[in-house]
Amino acid sequence: MSSEQRTEISTLGEFGLIDHLTRNIELQNASSVLGVGDDAAVIDHFGKQTVVTTDLLIEGVHFDLIYTPLRHLGYKSVIVNLSDIYAMNAIPTQITISLGISNRFSLEALTEFYEGVYAACEKYGVDLVGGDTASSKKGFIISITALGEVAPDKFVKRSTAQKGDLLCVSGYLGSAYVGLLFLEREKKIFLESPGVQPDLEGEAFVVGKLLKPEARKDIVEFLAKEEITPTAMMDVSDGLSSEILHICKQSNLGCVLYEDKIPVAEEMKQAAYKFEIDPTACALSGGEDYELLFTVSQSDYDKLVLNEEISVVGYMTEPEAGAHIITKGGGKHAITAQGWNHLK
Amino acid sequence: MSSEQRTEISTLGEFGLIDHLTRNIELQNASSVLGVGDDAAVIDHFGKQTVVTTDLLIEGVHFDLIYTPLRHLGYKSVIVNLSDIYAMNAIPTQITISLGISNRFSLEALTEFYEGVYAACEKYGVDLVGGDTASSKKGFIISITALGEVAPDKFVKRSTAQKGDLLCVSGYLGSAYVGLLFLEREKKIFLESPGVQPDLEGEAFVVGKLLKPEARKDIVEFLAKEEITPTAMMDVSDGLSSEILHICKQSNLGCVLYEDKIPVAEEMKQAAYKFEIDPTACALSGGEDYELLFTVSQSDYDKLVLNEEISVVGYMTEPEAGAHIITKGGGKHAITAQGWNHLK
Repeated sequence: MSSEQRTEISTLGEFGLIDHLTRNIELQNASSVLGVGDDAAVIDHFGKQTVVTTDLLIEGVHFDLIYTPLRHLGYKSVIVNLSDIYAMNAIPTQITISLGISNRFSLEALTEFYEGVYAACEKYGVDLVGGDTASSKKGFIISITALGEVAPDKFVKRSTAQKGDLLCVSGYLGSAYVGLLFLEREKKIFLESPGVQPDLEGEAFVVGKLLKPEARKDIVEFLAKEEITPTAMMDVSDGLSSEILHICKQSNLGCVLYEDKIPVAEEMKQAAYKFEIDPTACALSGGEDYELLFTVSQSDYDKLVLNEEISVVGYMTEPEAGAHIITKGGGKHAITAQGWNHLK
Repeated sequence: MSSEQRTEISTLGEFGLIDHLTRNIELQNASSVLGVGDDAAVIDHFGKQTVVTTDLLIEGVHFDLIYTPLRHLGYKSVIVNLSDIYAMNAIPTQITISLGISNRFSLEALTEFYEGVYAACEKYGVDLVGGDTASSKKGFIISITALGEVAPDKFVKRSTAQKGDLLCVSGYLGSAYVGLLFLEREKKIFLESPGVQPDLEGEAFVVGKLLKPEARKDIVEFLAKEEITPTAMMDVSDGLSSEILHICKQSNLGCVLYEDKIPVAEEMKQAAYKFEIDPTACALSGGEDYELLFTVSQSDYDKLVLNEEISVVGYMTEPEAGAHIITKGGGKHAITAQGWNHLK
């Protein structure tokens, strides 16, 4: 490694780093319709366009095997990739999976992991078509790539929202984060007093949202059926604030978000109160919800309301207005990008 | 993890493990033409078929940063994936790259790595279209997926060699392994006496083959130009013996390999003698050559000999005859799968 200048990666953040490392890319193939900078890349294949996305999950960083059953981990590893494909308005078709495994793992353990992988593949109709298995010195490493199909030029980017568009989100937000708080608490108790049984009574909802998330295939199918093409879309993996700011920045727009419109589940609210934290903060800054955040033209409003799983949470404005949240009390605050990692 | 039965992964080996974990896959999409079990998967896209492959490289397992310049590591990480695409008789078009990085890495170090990635992309005409960047607790992790195109049903598997076909290999074999021996020797000396300068005088050839391999685009182009379609093909990443046995097993054939036909470079021979090891053993069991091993119909022989980079090393036989090597002395021995890891 160079012993000269040294810029700490932490000064850039993940997205700054990606921007820096990819700023000089010039696509060479006519088939590369869309490259780095969105949820997935798009590749033209004469009749259909292929969408590809990839995720790397590392033990101790992205998951904790103390409270993550391997079957759930396998399932979730697939889901996080499929979620990126759906976020392009595409249908996932294939995945590849590479694993780095230490000798700590038995065949039974790996089989459990793959059971989860196959359960997700079956549920979402995708094929596992390849991969690589390597030994790791320490820790479990999972790298998944997903491919999907979309009709030509029907994929939806983050950068094409229009002023006046409605800002929408699927499902409920913040639950997975509260589930994590419970699991972290129980882990701490377990490590201090191994005899104590975990107390997750009544928290199946939030814990389930963390350990076994689903990708919103139903929303993409609903949009297709109702002939609604979102003007922009992405999945919510780092918290609503952070993702809204991505759409604002990449579309060069501002937005208004209404706190009282943000969908939070009753179970999550009750759980959040036990930790004396604000459910809205969990929705804004907690990660791993894998819901879809999208913008649609106002003219699609009548069709949207047919689906109870979709909430209209605000609208897009001119860029000069900035990105703001109107609180339940009527206050107006700038939205800041304190995401998942920040809360952690 | 399950506390019941425990089968050590080591009892299966990598391929046994893959077989075990993938034995129940049923492909669900008509577009999944070929899944797990070859160098890459094939996906039908109406007019062209997409080929996808992926590799996971882990510090301390697949590379050693003590003697691997990051620029070369970036280059090689791409090459090993492109080599798999060419081994399908396809043309690589896109890659995605995911990195796990610890805070030990500076931006300059990562930029160096990406310079190598981009150099390979430019040379081979592929587009980097996506990826993921994660923090790792320890060690550098690289996961690359490559996509490629091939005309419908022109991809070449490992399982379709025919009895009587010629067994061919590109370039020279065993050089990368001897390069590794030199670098490991110098690393040991360096760790014992940090003041001593590395002595790689005259070993640029073998060290270069290890640190900066190339993928055999030229061979695939030559085969296309001469209208030769190999009956089976794969790349040589684990040593010639191991790869020949893959083709024999998957095609249900035997083979005869002639020691005196195995292409070894004069520079490699001289270098191997310094370690008092047999150049043929390096070619048979040393890995990371990234040459192409393929079988062709005897009727293509006249066209093949036009290319000095291709050596005919043997021929395929009925399965009952087994896989044998005829030594320079005229002896006949069964080929055994002592690959890369074994020698290590």
